Amino acid sequence: MTLRSYFNPSSIAVVGASNDPGKAGYQIYRNLLDLGFEGPVWAVNPKLPELFDRPCYPTLRDIPGPVELMVISVPAFGAPEIFEQAEARGDVRAAVVIASGFSETKIPERVALERDMLRIAKRAGIRVMGPNCVGVMNTGNHLDTTFAAGIRQSRGGMSVISQSGALGASIMMFATHQPAPMGFAKWAHVGNQSDVDVLEVMRFYRDDPDTRVIAMYMEGINNAKDFLKVAREVTRDKPVIALKVGRSEAGSGAAASHTGSLVGSDAVYDAAFRQAGIIRVDTVEELLDTAKAISMQPLPTGNRIAVLTEAGGPGIIAMDELGLAKDIVMARFEERTIAALKEALPPMAIVDHTPGYVDMSAAADEEHHARALSIVLEDPNVDGIVHISVPPTFLRPDELARRTVDVLDGARKPVTICYMAGKWITNARRLLEDARIPTFDMPERAARTMRNMVRRAQHMQRSKLGTQEKQDASRHSPSLSAASDVLLRERRDADENLTEPEARKILSDYGIAFERAVAAADADRAAHAFSETQEPTAMKIISRDILHKSDVGGVRVNLRTEAEVRDAYRDMLANVARANPDARIDGVLVSPMAKPGIEMIVGASRDAQFGPVVMVGFGGVLVELLRDVAFRIAPFYEDEARAMIDELQLRSVLDGVRGGPKGDVDALAKLIIRVGRVMTERSDIAEIDLNPVRVYAGGVVPLDARIVLAGKETA
Amino acid sequence: MTLRSYFNPSSIAVVGASNDPGKAGYQIYRNLLDLGFEGPVWAVNPKLPELFDRPCYPTLRDIPGPVELMVISVPAFGAPEIFEQAEARGDVRAAVVIASGFSETKIPERVALERDMLRIAKRAGIRVMGPNCVGVMNTGNHLDTTFAAGIRQSRGGMSVISQSGALGASIMMFATHQPAPMGFAKWAHVGNQSDVDVLEVMRFYRDDPDTRVIAMYMEGINNAKDFLKVAREVTRDKPVIALKVGRSEAGSGAAASHTGSLVGSDAVYDAAFRQAGIIRVDTVEELLDTAKAISMQPLPTGNRIAVLTEAGGPGIIAMDELGLAKDIVMARFEERTIAALKEALPPMAIVDHTPGYVDMSAAADEEHHARALSIVLEDPNVDGIVHISVPPTFLRPDELARRTVDVLDGARKPVTICYMAGKWITNARRLLEDARIPTFDMPERAARTMRNMVRRAQHMQRSKLGTQEKQDASRHSPSLSAASDVLLRERRDADENLTEPEARKILSDYGIAFERAVAAADADRAAHAFSETQEPTAMKIISRDILHKSDVGGVRVNLRTEAEVRDAYRDMLANVARANPDARIDGVLVSPMAKPGIEMIVGASRDAQFGPVVMVGFGGVLVELLRDVAFRIAPFYEDEARAMIDELQLRSVLDGVRGGPKGDVDALAKLIIRVGRVMTERSDIAEIDLNPVRVYAGGVVPLDARIVLAGKETA
Repeated sequence: MTLRSYFNPSSIAVVGASNDPGKAGYQIYRNLLDLGFEGPVWAVNPKLPELFDRPCYPTLRDIPGPVELMVISVPAFGAPEIFEQAEARGDVRAAVVIASGFSETKIPERVALERDMLRIAKRAGIRVMGPNCVGVMNTGNHLDTTFAAGIRQSRGGMSVISQSGALGASIMMFATHQPAPMGFAKWAHVGNQSDVDVLEVMRFYRDDPDTRVIAMYMEGINNAKDFLKVAREVTRDKPVIALKVGRSEAGSGAAASHTGSLVGSDAVYDAAFRQAGIIRVDTVEELLDTAKAISMQPLPTGNRIAVLTEAGGPGIIAMDELGLAKDIVMARFEERTIAALKEALPPMAIVDHTPGYVDMSAAADEEHHARALSIVLEDPNVDGIVHISVPPTFLRPDELARRTVDVLDGARKPVTICYMAGKWITNARRLLEDARIPTFDMPERAARTMRNMVRRAQHMQRSKLGTQEKQDASRHSPSLSAASDVLLRERRDADENLTEPEARKILSDYGIAFERAVAAADADRAAHAFSETQEPTAMKIISRDILHKSDVGGVRVNLRTEAEVRDAYRDMLANVARANPDARIDGVLVSPMAKPGIEMIVGASRDAQFGPVVMVGFGGVLVELLRDVAFRIAPFYEDEARAMIDELQLRSVLDGVRGGPKGDVDALAKLIIRVGRVMTERSDIAEIDLNPVRVYAGGVVPLDARIVLAGKETA
Repeated sequence: MTLRSYFNPSSIAVVGASNDPGKAGYQIYRNLLDLGFEGPVWAVNPKLPELFDRPCYPTLRDIPGPVELMVISVPAFGAPEIFEQAEARGDVRAAVVIASGFSETKIPERVALERDMLRIAKRAGIRVMGPNCVGVMNTGNHLDTTFAAGIRQSRGGMSVISQSGALGASIMMFATHQPAPMGFAKWAHVGNQSDVDVLEVMRFYRDDPDTRVIAMYMEGINNAKDFLKVAREVTRDKPVIALKVGRSEAGSGAAASHTGSLVGSDAVYDAAFRQAGIIRVDTVEELLDTAKAISMQPLPTGNRIAVLTEAGGPGIIAMDELGLAKDIVMARFEERTIAALKEALPPMAIVDHTPGYVDMSAAADEEHHARALSIVLEDPNVDGIVHISVPPTFLRPDELARRTVDVLDGARKPVTICYMAGKWITNARRLLEDARIPTFDMPERAARTMRNMVRRAQHMQRSKLGTQEKQDASRHSPSLSAASDVLLRERRDADENLTEPEARKILSDYGIAFERAVAAADADRAAHAFSETQEPTAMKIISRDILHKSDVGGVRVNLRTEAEVRDAYRDMLANVARANPDARIDGVLVSPMAKPGIEMIVGASRDAQFGPVVMVGFGGVLVELLRDVAFRIAPFYEDEARAMIDELQLRSVLDGVRGGPKGDVDALAKLIIRVGRVMTERSDIAEIDLNPVRVYAGGVVPLDARIVLAGKETA
């Protein structure tokens, strides 16, 4: 069964309808009546013969017509009985349980109450939304099961999922009280998610013809992997915009106190959203602005944006906002565009001072605006336009809006519009929005929205590429050898960590290449290993009981003679024995010193929510302090591996800096993907650390490898 | 003369008043009549016998009463004549010249026109605001010389200065059309600043008893030094909040096209604003929110903030915003506060999960809100409160507001309030604002505003400290020796740069200490210098014709024997002769290799607008790419030098990282101040480069010194 019975019920019973304005059951019933829900709405309350001049029934059974959806607004302990009554009726398909005081309290008795209620519901074939929720809205049939007062319903293409009832309701109030009210299609707050959950609502919205874009308010995720999977599916068809709180430590703490769920690292959420194609925003305003614009306009086919203004100040503010976005470039007009603008606009207009910026000057009238918009729209170097006006007294806003609608009729590039002049331009904004042209009261809002539209378009392009690549990748990828599998199982069973040579062996099976290294069980063999190359050599202690080799004097570098190698061997064993007398030593790992290159780190761990997370970053003590790192959730493929690398602040180092060497981005991307693959296939591996990784103009070489098995200490 | 005649004229003449709604002169006259300016408003237009049923006069001379202020809305070429008529009258004190088409066009004829007009005005003793401006507003006497339509005047403590007429007007419209209209005191747009400039308006606002806070929109500064001086004076008495555009390259470009003035580095503006005590904001909304709150509330005495909410989602959003601000810490309640909250609030309330966060739960009523607010307010560990409500149906917003006003009556800590529920809480917000409690429609706005109030408070504390320190500093500071002065003059006259030993000499005069280094004119002397210490040694070529010594093979390090020193000497001279045959060589600078330490850079240059700018940052190729640097405009003192260091992302390195050495922050701050002092005293020095500077646990040592004289190449 889908959620149709929630959003399009033929009839509704409000159990616990009330004449006391302080009760939720009052407002729910009023909202359904006042908004004019298209179908019977029955009131149930044993204490009232009638309510608002309509009959009121003592129980569900007494209702003289069919009931598809019931909204239960009685105290928690009364809820199971209502489900029994509904079971007896046989026609109820869905329930919204408003009451709180169930499993969210973590009180055993109340957790059991929720379970009991759910058992009856299941038996009766009734879906449950909540408890501890406010339910759904649908502007298509004037449905509203919430007890929020004062929400105007106005239709539009955005549908909302909120993890907070209060915030979700205020989002709608904020939206509908904007100078140009934002319309929406559907809305849901699913509370404890005992049965219907966020993912099911997302899927329902994806299939809902009235929903063009999905806007979410999120505090945390309980089932992160399913979330990623569903979000990936949904964002292929429809844009999803999310306001996810917990950006700061203080915010995460507060969110954890609210949802009772783990909140997790914000950087990992960022990665997850990016991979799932969800556009993450910072504020309610940005959430609504973005959802509105995407629901109205075509997506840009590139990231080259132009700003068209007749007022300098607001134009500059828009340019600033776009200029600060790394994913936007200002459009470079064709020469004929500049010539046409010069001809069309007043002499004071500035058209070729700053790329992508046209200041039509305060002398511009409606005709100038319309012509300039049309000229810029036709330039093939422009993918989207931010159009700004602070209409002077001689410029008629309605006429400006009408001319703009004409010019944009059938246009295949997005335009966001900011008119600034208080109430004087309210009607003009409505004219534009009726023609599905999104308007904003501040230039930075119009600009930021355009940037988010570019992000959505870029996701669509990436995901097309990604699909092909995923197929390619799954065709030829190495896998673990039988010997390595046995090794991992043995260590796991013995509750022991891997030594470095063992870690290298496992990773080699997945195509991760290391430089030659010889495990030497005594000084003679170490000296022999050195003598074979005669190159400056490094030695590291081999011990499954030591995670941080240099901390215990277990690393020596730049050994240049056999004698130095023998001395070092003796010293290292003595050092380690002093620092950790119980550590079992399997000898030393002897390898020639690696050539200098760009120092990076690649690692992986398991996030409590999202599972395997792979990290890449630049190395070195100072740089590590700056945390110039990027994350992705495994598995992922080349597009995401490259995107990770591109996110690094120091990315340009890989292109060669100050005559320094370049770095092999292809090889680095492959290494990252392979580390992700190990983590995906081997749930018995908790952590992988390749630190440092030397990146050369041709190839990458991890100089150290560490694998921590699940259940072992990680520090 | 002050600007009193602009803001409080006894009478006004509108020259160019019109009955054509498309003309500025129509709207200006209408605004003055419609708002009800308190005094005679005369219309002047030779073509109209009357206007809006009032007499209209052919010329200024025909006006039968006194005229203190004239607003000139006639084409540019007509303006000088108007001033002649005013001169003949003898009573006009001030003029607002609306017309554009003067010096801003850069057309010589029109530049001359502005000059001529100004000459007449000066002769007649008339001040000029503009041209190319829209003038002033004053809510105290219902004055408005602008031609913006639809601005409601509501009184408040904020006064505005805008560098854009259109944006300035839309700021006012935005402000007055908020759900809780923001009041203001005075407003000005000064256009070309031919006479009255931004600084004079700032000073006037400082002395204006109706102005409690100054809000500015800025695009660029022409007289940066005066600006800094005036801003420093003004911010001692009144808060100044500024929205300065040009944050991005695209935005700077657009701003330069608009104002025609240099825009300069945004990082230097940031430093200048900080030093001047101006609070810089990112959006119009933040400008108005901050100005409103500061004009209403006491400042916090510390940075420990609490969030009090009955709705989880909005509370978390506020916590996120505060948590991301480096200058805020969440308050840690006293134990008795927690106990009192637990007793006062519903059982579901969360009071001790996350520092500074109280979620009163959805069951909280007006009484709970009031009691919790009162308890948190009394905690000595709390410096400010963000209070949030999404009133459920049973909570009466007006009652909540009234109780809140009672609790906050006489409170000495700031509170910002967010009520979210569309129109349902509009009246409650008005009740609060009438009691000078600022309200916001989104939690992040309430939180951000609180953060900005903390910033204002911190400036006030810094500036108290700073004054004392400045006096101390000026008492004992070294100055340039006569010999160094001669040296600088000689080089300047010869149009030559300084060699490194010369640069060291100059900087030493200012107390900047270097390690021992010997200038050796030949290989023998170099070898001798080495033999005196026998320590590993570095040698650098000495040449006033070579700015980048290592680029031409002019640097050798780690020389360990006399033979190596002699060889190196020969090699270096050969290298340099090859790379730059004409360079004059004065020998080499021989110095022992410096001990390892933390690598930093200190430098200074002259900003086209602000003059001497000093920079400090971390060194190393990768770190320099990340531009972890901070700026200040010289002169400055220890408080600012320390603040600069504290701004660096890698600041913690100076505290010792991973057992690494600490850095001497005192000595580093002194070095920075001294570099600033050199730049302030010697305008003939264009640039100073100390790169690298080794920072040790005790002391700092610049390893290289470069001084570029004014007028010489800098790269």
